[in-house]
Amino acid sequence: MAQQHPPAAANANANAPSLLDLTIDNITPNTIRINSQSPDARLTYVMARLVTHLHDFARETRLSTDEWMAAIGFLIGCGKICTDVRNEFILLSDVLGLSLLVDSINHPKPEGSTEGSVLGPFHTHDAPILANGASMTSDPEGEPMLALCTVKDTQGNPVAGVHVDIWETDSSGHYDVQHADRDAPSERCVMVSDEEGRFWFRGIKPVSYPIPHDGPVGKLLQMLKRHCWRPAHVHFMFGKEGWDKLVTALYLRGDPYAESDAVFGVKQSLVVDLEKVDKATAEKYGVAEGSWLLRQDFVLTTQHETEKLRDKLATEALQKLGLNLKLVDHLPVPDLD
Amino acid sequence: MAQQHPPAAANANANAPSLLDLTIDNITPNTIRINSQSPDARLTYVMARLVTHLHDFARETRLSTDEWMAAIGFLIGCGKICTDVRNEFILLSDVLGLSLLVDSINHPKPEGSTEGSVLGPFHTHDAPILANGASMTSDPEGEPMLALCTVKDTQGNPVAGVHVDIWETDSSGHYDVQHADRDAPSERCVMVSDEEGRFWFRGIKPVSYPIPHDGPVGKLLQMLKRHCWRPAHVHFMFGKEGWDKLVTALYLRGDPYAESDAVFGVKQSLVVDLEKVDKATAEKYGVAEGSWLLRQDFVLTTQHETEKLRDKLATEALQKLGLNLKLVDHLPVPDLD
Repeated sequence: MAQQHPPAAANANANAPSLLDLTIDNITPNTIRINSQSPDARLTYVMARLVTHLHDFARETRLSTDEWMAAIGFLIGCGKICTDVRNEFILLSDVLGLSLLVDSINHPKPEGSTEGSVLGPFHTHDAPILANGASMTSDPEGEPMLALCTVKDTQGNPVAGVHVDIWETDSSGHYDVQHADRDAPSERCVMVSDEEGRFWFRGIKPVSYPIPHDGPVGKLLQMLKRHCWRPAHVHFMFGKEGWDKLVTALYLRGDPYAESDAVFGVKQSLVVDLEKVDKATAEKYGVAEGSWLLRQDFVLTTQHETEKLRDKLATEALQKLGLNLKLVDHLPVPDLD
Repeated sequence: MAQQHPPAAANANANAPSLLDLTIDNITPNTIRINSQSPDARLTYVMARLVTHLHDFARETRLSTDEWMAAIGFLIGCGKICTDVRNEFILLSDVLGLSLLVDSINHPKPEGSTEGSVLGPFHTHDAPILANGASMTSDPEGEPMLALCTVKDTQGNPVAGVHVDIWETDSSGHYDVQHADRDAPSERCVMVSDEEGRFWFRGIKPVSYPIPHDGPVGKLLQMLKRHCWRPAHVHFMFGKEGWDKLVTALYLRGDPYAESDAVFGVKQSLVVDLEKVDKATAEKYGVAEGSWLLRQDFVLTTQHETEKLRDKLATEALQKLGLNLKLVDHLPVPDLD
């Protein structure tokens, strides 16, 4: 059955602008006008900038009908390949540098705090909470790695009770969700920092791996002559009420893809050297002497610190762009006063 | 099974730019640089403008993580609802004014030729070729309408052998593909103009109807307080080797949505008055006296005429934008000479 029709719009010709004889030049202000009937100033502003950029893009490139149709087909392909555990649009955002940009805008880091990195499409919500010292790996092929970490604030005080999501690929370079026969989470866990801000766990030494390249985004990278590899890394995500959520990752120094990460995630401050576990550490943590050792002290900022910094940077950036905006709920809207 | 890995990129650190410590400000030139490794100058240019606008959009709006995630979810929703006979991304392009813009760029119309209108998402490729005078309707509830049309060139000469795709909704405002039980095309056909450039057929008087509004695009219009209606119209698409493909529609004067078409399709020159069939015409065409009569003379341009005009308008527009571009295969690429 075809869907039922909605009631005819009573205001078809009342307040809406008259839209006739639209051309290459006047389509933009007219689209913005008809999109400006909502009382939501933020929505109106975001849509106005979206339409302006979309139309400018088409005008500057004189976008051909074939290119437009190819873009439509590309977007459908991205949608069709998405599943509960695969998000091709996040991947697209990642390879176009948008994810890095949005993270940088929303989570500016004061000097001395740990920088962020891209979330990527492989975080899940079903990782088990493990006790400190537990093993998060079920991969016998991986090279064992002990991680000894702390979470502190910008004054150096330990932060207890932080939930730390940790995830990495197996030794073949695949996340658990990339295996069709996945029946439980593996190579991922949640740990909780103790009273001294510490958390420690056993995993495997991360390996470089390609992002999923059998879909539209992989084909795009191929057309662009870009490789699809990410340097070896372990993901970390820190959450605690009142603290700015930190999404980051640690990268191994010397990885061949460290300077050409397909998703722009690497920052110098996030590149680490692995050590080897010495005899005393091996005995203390019950791991083999000579296995890999990752040490890292993470520094969180409070939500308040981040919001203040974000508002300050937003205000400066918008002034620099010459835009007459004000922040409402920390987000820019036109300043009509 | 997880997919096999591609061979590691041999040139990971060779020619690709070094991407480290990317920030709100330097992510754009770096993304453009890594996207510029293909010899395809057009692809490189289009991607550079896409990335620039995408990033500028995020910077100007200080796009929040929640808004970014909502956009990702919106795009997935659009992809998921697409089928062989429903294209939500074309609909999105339509309601954002992009379809009108791309059509205007690609099919500029010289003075005196018939203007274009949006294709919309409901054209199909399975419409039957019908002989002149045939009926394209199978809807007994519709008000019968006879259409008497001609196709001419800009000098007034008839153009014979033009394939004319014609499609409209049934009297309930639904295209055949919107009925789940569709087993054959209806309210659509292809006609071929005769030696005198004529084609004529029997259909029904078109009615206003809402675009599909049960998906993400419909929800977007609702958020924007826009109605989802299109004024009553019949679609026409003209194709013949050597002639510029004309995608257009005729709209009925007096329709309540004529000036607020949800997809920006209406042009004054495409608004028509229906007449009533008189006795002589009724006898000649075997239809009831007093039924609706649509008369229209369409004017096509040659492919050469359109290309010349498109190149001229493109060159003028790019100069006006201050862009140093040249046309290759009628499409702009940077002029590096």
